[in-house]
Amino acid sequence: MLYFEDFTPGRRFDYAPVQMQAADMIAFAGEFDPQPMHLDEEAGRKSILGGLAASGWHTSAIGMRMMIDAFLGHSSSQGSPGIDFMDWRKPVLTGDVLSGFSLVLESRPSKSKPGLGIVKFRNEICNQSNEAVAVSECSIMFRRREGRRP
Amino acid sequence: MLYFEDFTPGRRFDYAPVQMQAADMIAFAGEFDPQPMHLDEEAGRKSILGGLAASGWHTSAIGMRMMIDAFLGHSSSQGSPGIDFMDWRKPVLTGDVLSGFSLVLESRPSKSKPGLGIVKFRNEICNQSNEAVAVSECSIMFRRREGRRP
Repeated sequence: MLYFEDFTPGRRFDYAPVQMQAADMIAFAGEFDPQPMHLDEEAGRKSILGGLAASGWHTSAIGMRMMIDAFLGHSSSQGSPGIDFMDWRKPVLTGDVLSGFSLVLESRPSKSKPGLGIVKFRNEICNQSNEAVAVSECSIMFRRREGRRP
Repeated sequence: MLYFEDFTPGRRFDYAPVQMQAADMIAFAGEFDPQPMHLDEEAGRKSILGGLAASGWHTSAIGMRMMIDAFLGHSSSQGSPGIDFMDWRKPVLTGDVLSGFSLVLESRPSKSKPGLGIVKFRNEICNQSNEAVAVSECSIMFRRREGRRP
């Protein structure tokens, strides 16, 4: 179990690889982002993305899952107030194998909630050619190992 | 059909309301963000979110769908290079009714791609108490009405 104190600047958590399946990409896009280049191979080829391409939100949600499996799922995470930025740098196409990492940039105890600390991460999702496809930074709140002090 | 030229600064697109269902929230979280407060009512009540709460990524994906239905689905959108920021300001709980709007902040023709223009939006998702639950800014690329010039 990882607590606030375990997230020291420079510590890095690597993601297990995930292969993108056309059926999953189309299902996600059909529900949340039904644009032609996310739904249809031919429309994707005609778009600037160059093929059936995952919604950026799908790639980001998969990135969340990769963070859960790499470290958040066995941590004292209390959620996140948001993301500082999310760059979708390259199209994510059918068959791409995504991996990547989260790197601890900085950490500080919460001023308003003494039992919590806030950790800032840089998150990079890469494809099988080691090109960054999605890069983001976000802060996540964790419970402190000692709990709330008096 | 809306083209780059239609997205003039100050133009606003309102979202149709969407009610949050526990089953959808749990299904999304199970796939992408399996943290206890997104999966279980009791765990949510014990968390700082105060109840079974949607993953921020779920709220954001629903916001994408609301943008599609409000204007992107009948536009020349070519996708987005990313989001400038996304603030998850309030928990989104079972039964909440989300709505909101996208507001055009600025627009400019693309320098590198003459047939395209880039539009910056502010997007606010609100709950039934008119509290902002998710606020973001992003840029979206649109084809120009006239197409590529010589």
